[in-house]
Amino acid sequence: MQAIKFKNNRLFYLDQRLLPIKEVWRECKSLKDGVSAIKNLEVRGAPLIGIFAGYVVYIESKKFFFSKKNFLRQLDRTLKSLKNTRPTAVNLFWILEKIESAVKANMDKDIDTLQNLILEVVKKTHLEDINSCKRIANFGVRLINETDTILTHCNSGFLATSGEGTALGIIYQAYKKLKNIKVYVDETRPLLQGARLTIWELQKKHIPCILICDDMAAYLMKQSKIDKIIVGADRISAYGDVANKIGTYNLAVLANYHKIPFYVAAPFSSFDLKIKNLPDTLVEQRDPNEVRKVFNKIYITPKDVKVYNPAFDITPSRLITAIVTDKGIIYPPYKKNIKNIFAKFF
Amino acid sequence: MQAIKFKNNRLFYLDQRLLPIKEVWRECKSLKDGVSAIKNLEVRGAPLIGIFAGYVVYIESKKFFFSKKNFLRQLDRTLKSLKNTRPTAVNLFWILEKIESAVKANMDKDIDTLQNLILEVVKKTHLEDINSCKRIANFGVRLINETDTILTHCNSGFLATSGEGTALGIIYQAYKKLKNIKVYVDETRPLLQGARLTIWELQKKHIPCILICDDMAAYLMKQSKIDKIIVGADRISAYGDVANKIGTYNLAVLANYHKIPFYVAAPFSSFDLKIKNLPDTLVEQRDPNEVRKVFNKIYITPKDVKVYNPAFDITPSRLITAIVTDKGIIYPPYKKNIKNIFAKFF
Repeated sequence: MQAIKFKNNRLFYLDQRLLPIKEVWRECKSLKDGVSAIKNLEVRGAPLIGIFAGYVVYIESKKFFFSKKNFLRQLDRTLKSLKNTRPTAVNLFWILEKIESAVKANMDKDIDTLQNLILEVVKKTHLEDINSCKRIANFGVRLINETDTILTHCNSGFLATSGEGTALGIIYQAYKKLKNIKVYVDETRPLLQGARLTIWELQKKHIPCILICDDMAAYLMKQSKIDKIIVGADRISAYGDVANKIGTYNLAVLANYHKIPFYVAAPFSSFDLKIKNLPDTLVEQRDPNEVRKVFNKIYITPKDVKVYNPAFDITPSRLITAIVTDKGIIYPPYKKNIKNIFAKFF
Repeated sequence: MQAIKFKNNRLFYLDQRLLPIKEVWRECKSLKDGVSAIKNLEVRGAPLIGIFAGYVVYIESKKFFFSKKNFLRQLDRTLKSLKNTRPTAVNLFWILEKIESAVKANMDKDIDTLQNLILEVVKKTHLEDINSCKRIANFGVRLINETDTILTHCNSGFLATSGEGTALGIIYQAYKKLKNIKVYVDETRPLLQGARLTIWELQKKHIPCILICDDMAAYLMKQSKIDKIIVGADRISAYGDVANKIGTYNLAVLANYHKIPFYVAAPFSSFDLKIKNLPDTLVEQRDPNEVRKVFNKIYITPKDVKVYNPAFDITPSRLITAIVTDKGIIYPPYKKNIKNIFAKFF
């Protein structure tokens, strides 16, 4: 199961805005298509955005064959456009910078070679992402017990990565191995990634799941109905702060109060070691109509109401029990342990 | 501004399911109309449900004129039906028991007199509810500072009471007196009473307000954007536990973590002194389609998904900074102070 496909030099993606009502595959033929797919959340999920953007660069780069100068200028423009689509997810910058430095290191090569080089970088990163998911799942499954009931937020499954997912990947692996787990899913307003995407994924995998509204999670915890919380991440700082879908911080505070383990799962490409602590200013504010309307169709409130609509929130590291990465599980103190694990692998 | 009208012996109500898109007044002509209006949340809000149910008893009682025996049997049936509409809000039981004991104390009177007696009880309680709101507002406004930003959940205004409201009543009074306050409103999934009703009320009163999704409240608190939280109540126990719209407990835990005052506003008719602590079993579970669909129309999730849909949650008294009532503000220790205030007034 996957949410993007690259076949015969053509890029296709599942339009995630329409799920679970319709399963529509679209072709991305240009930078313009790609930018709008990311901005409108047709393609979403930090790791998936990265891989998708990589292929968009390649597809667009195939059009610049007039001169090397033109190629490099257009490439630069393409990278900039993609960087401007969504400011928070760091995997996007990770792959675009990889492409940039690969091209810079091979400036003397001809256009054809550079185009192939870009594709090589993207395919390699794509494969790495698939493997990252596998490794995250294998590490994370050690944290799950036989009959655990797990709460998750937003979507961090095969629709959010190019593999089986991060937080959901762990749940899939746990279900394969342990069978008796059960999953509660936050609907995740405003864009309902939990209700639309995670439930759809869990049903495809035949995993027992129950949908709740976001304001019900606390009450489940009060009744001791939640054993563990696992979520994904859009960016993790050097000291272990986590930017993730709005509502994540809410769950982290609730977990802290109810003494429930709160886990974050993400590949190394989600880490941003340039930032010690994530500032609230990092968070992207989105269109008020996402809150005012459902499915961009039905108004649920007066049309002119003022809205606060941050796409993400920042969860400080002190609220996080452990971070499951593709290189192992990181426990506090994060400042030291994130540094150590990066030193070991890079 | 009001949500029910009793005029020329006829009962009318504003259909709250359709707000804010349409303002439709309906007539309630029978017990059947009344029961379905309460069950379907066309009429909602603990205090309003009570008053409305009282008028429904009167209207229905006008039909039982054959014999005294028939009158009493039908009255009993009517009271039972209404008690079965919604199990959590206690104001409903309060008024129905008032009617019951008034009739019992006058069993020797003729049918006409008993019918008038019922109307008298209801009108008196109606007036009391209007005055309760005024008193709650006047007590509560003392807790608000000049430039406070207040967060509220669900709807506790003139659509939820027969007066100006409980929690919202305080906000209205504060705005009249202090002007510079600002209000954040939780949308309150699944039935969106915040987005649909509270925003509509605040706009009618020209009070600056901003809508958020329920999972955004924590992040606002983290950024010190909330000075106070005020909510209503459906039932308050002898020891100060509060049953209120699902999501209330969520806010109470968040307020505790962020050291933000958390206030509950409710009239004495919302207190249930027969219960020391509210059990979670008290909470009404509602139709899963309330979560699966928006406006009972558009599915936001696979149609067959399992759903957990409690209408309320229980907030333990230790998380509540103060309870604003029509007899004064009650502070902890609640066990002692609730007892004292009731001893003083009853």
